[in-house]
Amino acid sequence: MSEPLVYLRGKIVPASQAMLPVYDAGIVLGATVTEMTRTFKHQMFRLQDHLDRLYRALKYVRFELPMSRSELEAKTAEIVQHNLSLLGPEDDVGIIHFVTAGEYKTYAGMAGKQANSTPTVCVHTFPMPFELWTQKFEVGQHLITPSIRHVPPQCYDPKMKYRSRMHYYLADKEAHVSDPSAAALLLYLDGNVTETAGANFLIVEQGKIVTPTTRNTLPGISRQTVHELAAKLGIDFVERDFQVFNVVNAEEAFTSSTPYGVLPVTRINGLSIGDGKPGPVFQKIISAWGDLVGLDIRQQMRRGAERRVATGVC
Amino acid sequence: MSEPLVYLRGKIVPASQAMLPVYDAGIVLGATVTEMTRTFKHQMFRLQDHLDRLYRALKYVRFELPMSRSELEAKTAEIVQHNLSLLGPEDDVGIIHFVTAGEYKTYAGMAGKQANSTPTVCVHTFPMPFELWTQKFEVGQHLITPSIRHVPPQCYDPKMKYRSRMHYYLADKEAHVSDPSAAALLLYLDGNVTETAGANFLIVEQGKIVTPTTRNTLPGISRQTVHELAAKLGIDFVERDFQVFNVVNAEEAFTSSTPYGVLPVTRINGLSIGDGKPGPVFQKIISAWGDLVGLDIRQQMRRGAERRVATGVC
Amino acid sequence: MSEPLVYLRGKIVPASQAMLPVYDAGIVLGATVTEMTRTFKHQMFRLQDHLDRLYRALKYVRFELPMSRSELEAKTAEIVQHNLSLLGPEDDVGIIHFVTAGEYKTYAGMAGKQANSTPTVCVHTFPMPFELWTQKFEVGQHLITPSIRHVPPQCYDPKMKYRSRMHYYLADKEAHVSDPSAAALLLYLDGNVTETAGANFLIVEQGKIVTPTTRNTLPGISRQTVHELAAKLGIDFVERDFQVFNVVNAEEAFTSSTPYGVLPVTRINGLSIGDGKPGPVFQKIISAWGDLVGLDIRQQMRRGAERRVATGVC
Amino acid sequence: MSEPLVYLRGKIVPASQAMLPVYDAGIVLGATVTEMTRTFKHQMFRLQDHLDRLYRALKYVRFELPMSRSELEAKTAEIVQHNLSLLGPEDDVGIIHFVTAGEYKTYAGMAGKQANSTPTVCVHTFPMPFELWTQKFEVGQHLITPSIRHVPPQCYDPKMKYRSRMHYYLADKEAHVSDPSAAALLLYLDGNVTETAGANFLIVEQGKIVTPTTRNTLPGISRQTVHELAAKLGIDFVERDFQVFNVVNAEEAFTSSTPYGVLPVTRINGLSIGDGKPGPVFQKIISAWGDLVGLDIRQQMRRGAERRVATGVC
Amino acid sequence: MSEPLVYLRGKIVPASQAMLPVYDAGIVLGATVTEMTRTFKHQMFRLQDHLDRLYRALKYVRFELPMSRSELEAKTAEIVQHNLSLLGPEDDVGIIHFVTAGEYKTYAGMAGKQANSTPTVCVHTFPMPFELWTQKFEVGQHLITPSIRHVPPQCYDPKMKYRSRMHYYLADKEAHVSDPSAAALLLYLDGNVTETAGANFLIVEQGKIVTPTTRNTLPGISRQTVHELAAKLGIDFVERDFQVFNVVNAEEAFTSSTPYGVLPVTRINGLSIGDGKPGPVFQKIISAWGDLVGLDIRQQMRRGAERRVATGVC
Amino acid sequence: MSEPLVYLRGKIVPASQAMLPVYDAGIVLGATVTEMTRTFKHQMFRLQDHLDRLYRALKYVRFELPMSRSELEAKTAEIVQHNLSLLGPEDDVGIIHFVTAGEYKTYAGMAGKQANSTPTVCVHTFPMPFELWTQKFEVGQHLITPSIRHVPPQCYDPKMKYRSRMHYYLADKEAHVSDPSAAALLLYLDGNVTETAGANFLIVEQGKIVTPTTRNTLPGISRQTVHELAAKLGIDFVERDFQVFNVVNAEEAFTSSTPYGVLPVTRINGLSIGDGKPGPVFQKIISAWGDLVGLDIRQQMRRGAERRVATGVC
Repeated sequence: MSEPLVYLRGKIVPASQAMLPVYDAGIVLGATVTEMTRTFKHQMFRLQDHLDRLYRALKYVRFELPMSRSELEAKTAEIVQHNLSLLGPEDDVGIIHFVTAGEYKTYAGMAGKQANSTPTVCVHTFPMPFELWTQKFEVGQHLITPSIRHVPPQCYDPKMKYRSRMHYYLADKEAHVSDPSAAALLLYLDGNVTETAGANFLIVEQGKIVTPTTRNTLPGISRQTVHELAAKLGIDFVERDFQVFNVVNAEEAFTSSTPYGVLPVTRINGLSIGDGKPGPVFQKIISAWGDLVGLDIRQQMRRGAERRVATGVC
Repeated sequence: MSEPLVYLRGKIVPASQAMLPVYDAGIVLGATVTEMTRTFKHQMFRLQDHLDRLYRALKYVRFELPMSRSELEAKTAEIVQHNLSLLGPEDDVGIIHFVTAGEYKTYAGMAGKQANSTPTVCVHTFPMPFELWTQKFEVGQHLITPSIRHVPPQCYDPKMKYRSRMHYYLADKEAHVSDPSAAALLLYLDGNVTETAGANFLIVEQGKIVTPTTRNTLPGISRQTVHELAAKLGIDFVERDFQVFNVVNAEEAFTSSTPYGVLPVTRINGLSIGDGKPGPVFQKIISAWGDLVGLDIRQQMRRGAERRVATGVC
Repeated sequence: MSEPLVYLRGKIVPASQAMLPVYDAGIVLGATVTEMTRTFKHQMFRLQDHLDRLYRALKYVRFELPMSRSELEAKTAEIVQHNLSLLGPEDDVGIIHFVTAGEYKTYAGMAGKQANSTPTVCVHTFPMPFELWTQKFEVGQHLITPSIRHVPPQCYDPKMKYRSRMHYYLADKEAHVSDPSAAALLLYLDGNVTETAGANFLIVEQGKIVTPTTRNTLPGISRQTVHELAAKLGIDFVERDFQVFNVVNAEEAFTSSTPYGVLPVTRINGLSIGDGKPGPVFQKIISAWGDLVGLDIRQQMRRGAERRVATGVC
Repeated sequence: MSEPLVYLRGKIVPASQAMLPVYDAGIVLGATVTEMTRTFKHQMFRLQDHLDRLYRALKYVRFELPMSRSELEAKTAEIVQHNLSLLGPEDDVGIIHFVTAGEYKTYAGMAGKQANSTPTVCVHTFPMPFELWTQKFEVGQHLITPSIRHVPPQCYDPKMKYRSRMHYYLADKEAHVSDPSAAALLLYLDGNVTETAGANFLIVEQGKIVTPTTRNTLPGISRQTVHELAAKLGIDFVERDFQVFNVVNAEEAFTSSTPYGVLPVTRINGLSIGDGKPGPVFQKIISAWGDLVGLDIRQQMRRGAERRVATGVC
Repeated sequence: MSEPLVYLRGKIVPASQAMLPVYDAGIVLGATVTEMTRTFKHQMFRLQDHLDRLYRALKYVRFELPMSRSELEAKTAEIVQHNLSLLGPEDDVGIIHFVTAGEYKTYAGMAGKQANSTPTVCVHTFPMPFELWTQKFEVGQHLITPSIRHVPPQCYDPKMKYRSRMHYYLADKEAHVSDPSAAALLLYLDGNVTETAGANFLIVEQGKIVTPTTRNTLPGISRQTVHELAAKLGIDFVERDFQVFNVVNAEEAFTSSTPYGVLPVTRINGLSIGDGKPGPVFQKIISAWGDLVGLDIRQQMRRGAERRVATGVC
Repeated sequence: MSEPLVYLRGKIVPASQAMLPVYDAGIVLGATVTEMTRTFKHQMFRLQDHLDRLYRALKYVRFELPMSRSELEAKTAEIVQHNLSLLGPEDDVGIIHFVTAGEYKTYAGMAGKQANSTPTVCVHTFPMPFELWTQKFEVGQHLITPSIRHVPPQCYDPKMKYRSRMHYYLADKEAHVSDPSAAALLLYLDGNVTETAGANFLIVEQGKIVTPTTRNTLPGISRQTVHELAAKLGIDFVERDFQVFNVVNAEEAFTSSTPYGVLPVTRINGLSIGDGKPGPVFQKIISAWGDLVGLDIRQQMRRGAERRVATGVC
């Protein structure tokens, strides 16, 4: 099989057949929890941490999986092994686990069938689209604080990774009015800084890394990795809520997320952060991360992007 | 073709093939807007009002449709006509329009392709599952106010019908802990009553129909129909925010929604509303609605449910 | 005197005569502050801490006591000594101090008298009703987060123990709709977890005991005892606000309160916490507490309940 | 019997014996709902409206009365008739109905008994203490907006008259720091004006009477009477939330409450309202009210106060 | 005197000498209230309404003017008459009244003097800078909703025109990051639409003019004029809070403010409103306004701007 | 030159000429950022810290200074040296830096000129008005929590020192209604304690100094000095939000601010704090501060005040 494989509702299918009927609750309700893990040098990075967080989310949303965790891990390993085998040694994959609330009762009759309300479990991968981030590693991301605010934990808790992300979508769209290359940095209802649509946000203030509490943000695995690397590097890591004022006046800022580890942020609402360039704390973290996983992450991004452009896959 | 048809991404396909790849943004982000219209006696009811609301949503979320509104209407008519032809004259359909943000860039490479970010437009129908509501017409719905709160308009506005509905899902699940047959009546962050996961909510107080403002609720087409029927019947209709206290002490309560028009609510948090039975204002509205569309809605529900049970489709 | 004694408005009276006229502000306004202390093996446990908190409350509500603290302590000692003498050595008492705003001016004329606005001071005891908790020691409490929210400190501050507890009452009633054996776990307006109607709430997360800040909760003496016992046991104790998500995914949970010290919590909104049984941290704390006061608290509860049932006092 | 009578827990007793044991939930929890009605010329004014509101409260707090409404009305009539017979024709009474949650389980054992959790129903009267208000009729009330805020309806709803009034008590105490003769005008959490501890609040703006919505205030019977009298007098009456700015700049202001009907307000936070004297709209309302009940309310207050002072009852 | 005159702290001085010492509280605290009136054809438009609002503000902020209102009016008339005499008949002036809290005690010693805490009263005019708006009359204003929010009335009430406008300044600056020609449309903390830094905001929805309540906005005199003109034109005018969704989907939008009456708004957050051009309701209002004041406002703007450019005054 | 000098808009002028035209944005908008530094024994205290904070503010409000920081420092030194030379050795000065948004475009034409939108930079000094604080050093300040609340950071951030201080002004005025010698202690919207109009606020609780977080307060340089002195003295210093209850029951309280370092607070809302006298922690801090700067601060205040009164400068 030269096509990647996907685990979907109990079966392993080729990627091109990985589709959900339009009456799946993942489509009808956005009632989906998810995780993204990635490989570094073809090794899954902190898969157990991602699955732990997935299971916390599953419990909170009351989905009962039709399989054991060990089965899920086995299927994951099977898929990932096969799909990596289709790529070169310098490529890596992102691994998606998602679980929806199953088929939606009211609409399922459209296909002449009764709804199967067993949660829909899917595991798929995708080749790392390095071209999305390589440029930002050099010049830094631009962030905009839109008027759209983050969903409060009274509605659904950001401590799980969910897919009812309309606010993220709208926030990014609003940010793009101002700067098409920018991402939204969402504020909470009270004006506290939270996170971007796909990453935790961290600043450097008086030499310390400061990141918002998890009241309104995901307890990111990459953020946790930053914490651990900072400890090794002798850099203080503080979890504390802060406001836009702190970002404007930070020495550095960066986001943390599975695909890239950490990514420098160099502008906020049109203002330069620090000297407007990726800063030394970012550099130390990304280097230490590379040491941890045995490759130069920025280099992989850059070369991977060139390779992908050259081969026309993007 | 004896199978219902679906319009999906520019093509008309059999219902069994109406599927989205797992990298569609409708699945990845819940970034989807939607409408549900239904037929009464095989006639679409207020389709233009539903499409108007859809287009307001599309503008707000900045989706640009790859087709004109008249094309969309033509495809809708084609689908509906065909699908109704597969049903008996006493059946009716619900018609779903939904539009997602298109394919999600980061994951699309999983299937060896580049993302097509054109919004995904889908029109499908489903036979009315009468059995879901017929019992409630007789004894009334039970509602529970869960601790989960409605998403504020600062995040995404309830004046559009969207599919990032995790809060609705969680609210209903929390309500079911208390009463598996109950639905959640969501409160707003400030404690005001809003709506249920799929319907507007209305009470009768001193003989007047009172329903929350649209700050935190959908401006429902069925709610609008109630307004118009009330005007004909000489019943005052007031849009005003209220609290659980008002519901507990209302003379009557009901929800309004496309599939059933209006449905009586007879319990709130375990307390009977009024005398605990569907009330006279509800009766007048549902009768007047029947007159408007030329059928007895409760009777259709009851007979349709019996027929569906008898034929094993549900 | 074979009847327990009560100190009330300057006199010591038999318990059966411990009554307030209906125009006392404690009845008219709920303008009352209070403390509950208990004995373990006939010794008052941390009475000074309870009185310290009482005096903080008195200052905040501007009640001026018509007696000195040493007089209050003396009366307390006198009452407690007498009342304990009526019980067996295996029984214990709860000791209530409460102070109301005195007689309410507008209504006092009902009895042909002028209002005495001197605060009403009362000290009474009650035999520990062990039967209320013994079962919960074995299987754990069930908690429900109702839609009713905790009163904010801008209205009256939870750092004092007051008796305007309508929200607690309503919250418990709402919880009972779902589960008659459950207690309410109140959320604050912003969705943070606070406390139950009569106890602090603590969870175990990554091996640490975590309990909400005192912004919206009582700085409980029992909670403080847990803190001190945890220190002895080498268990981290963290004061930090958290949300329902944390409770759902806690390793353990328990409440702390004067009558029982700590009590395990095994369900939240119908979901099991941890493995659904009282956990090891709870076990260690309750054992250490027993060591501290010289008895096996669970055993006393169990035997006391049996004895009380056998003698028909409950 | 020359002493007033009180209905309490099923019996009619002399006023001097109208007492609650200290373990009644009305004392322990402030879990009490209440109403105050008064007589004008020995006739009960709008008793049915007060009882209607009481029953709405009872339903909301889930108290089940151990008697029918007609029994309650009969007992009320009996008490009132007797108690009025003890007064001169120029006096009048306030009539209190209150219902508590019954005896509190945990403490009831103090008196060697099991708790009777049947709600405690009490009806009592008190001679109108005219001296409390007569001076204010002449010079007007002073109001202060303290930092203490009104309890939100998410905690317990102001649409019922309850006795968990610690915030009212604290607010008045804080106001007295500034002006011992002033009452607190409580703001809601969002800064909107609500009500005083015992009365609704109304202003005159551009000739119209404006009063806050019932989101955060009691739907007062006296307020309703003002509404009806205003309609007769051709004065517009508007229910709309407003802020302190409106009060400072109102043409007039007054409170409405059972004992006095309406009472002028002439200062807010030390600033004169209008010309600092009771205004013409107030005068019209109080006169019309007098016409409605057949006496001159201010005159009764003034003379009654003189009589009471002269006879030493106050 | 060929220079315009200014009334300042009791004297009439040439405009070039209208200066405040740096220790005036207007500079130190921004503790200033103000009004802007303008002339149309050399006649002051609704001066009394502006002064009424000024006096409401003065009362709220507790400034006691060192002069009577009639003196203030006389000085205003004197200044305006003189200053208009320096302009051609086609020009008009804006008239500013502002009052500060007087000299600031702590700093006044800098100039070897004691502070005079009498409020600083100033009346000045400025020639209408037509060039600022003429272009916007043709193509419409662009608005952006920044992340900065409007100050709540609990801090200082928007029903007065004050000069502590840092939030307005920051909001406009944030809007300019996105579009240098745009103005900020501030949202309230709860996401409701309020106003721009210098104007009320109004939309047309289903043919009706809708504008936010004055909870969070200035009760504009121009807004009131729109109300009155709309009444004449048979257009409904509704005061009701709304959200960004309503603006995005409005048929038209415009702002109202003293310098220009009404000005069309054609974009919100990069989205066209209606057909993206000034709409018919705007056209009717501006024409009716012109009729009211006897000139064609747009024409005056256009010609005045041309004249000013030609003469190099701007 | 025997008059103090002021740096203003690029020039050094005598203090009596330090004036801003009424169309400066500092007057029109209150769009001004500022700092106050003082000298102790003619030495500037922590000037660099003040300028650092000024530059953070400038960046946040997007003012671009028309001079370098070293020029600003040079001008400051020049002014201060000259102005101190006019005073005796026992006097000291406060040094004000303020920057406004420059001239306001719309009004600048009043003086026949075009607006210069370059920020207005001013540096001035004032002799320390010791008489304002010396009495408070002895008996302590009185604080009142008014109903006016602090501006939230979503509007403008308290981490900069700004001059849109209307809320401060109103809060103090409201406090003065209650006690003319009191200052306002502002609460945040959620009831948390923040700061006074000109100082940080700190309490002593269980021997520790506790002060609110900088979410809603200025990160004061004096507060930072207290932190550093406390460290030297072995006193714990904790940054944590708290409520009025904590203040009422604090062991001590004080404010910190540039002119006086720390000042004891002995009453809150009419209640004594601790024993109602300046407490030992305050005494230790002010003494240590004196050691740090080489003078006895209280003595300087007392003697300076006497001298100023004697010489009639105040």
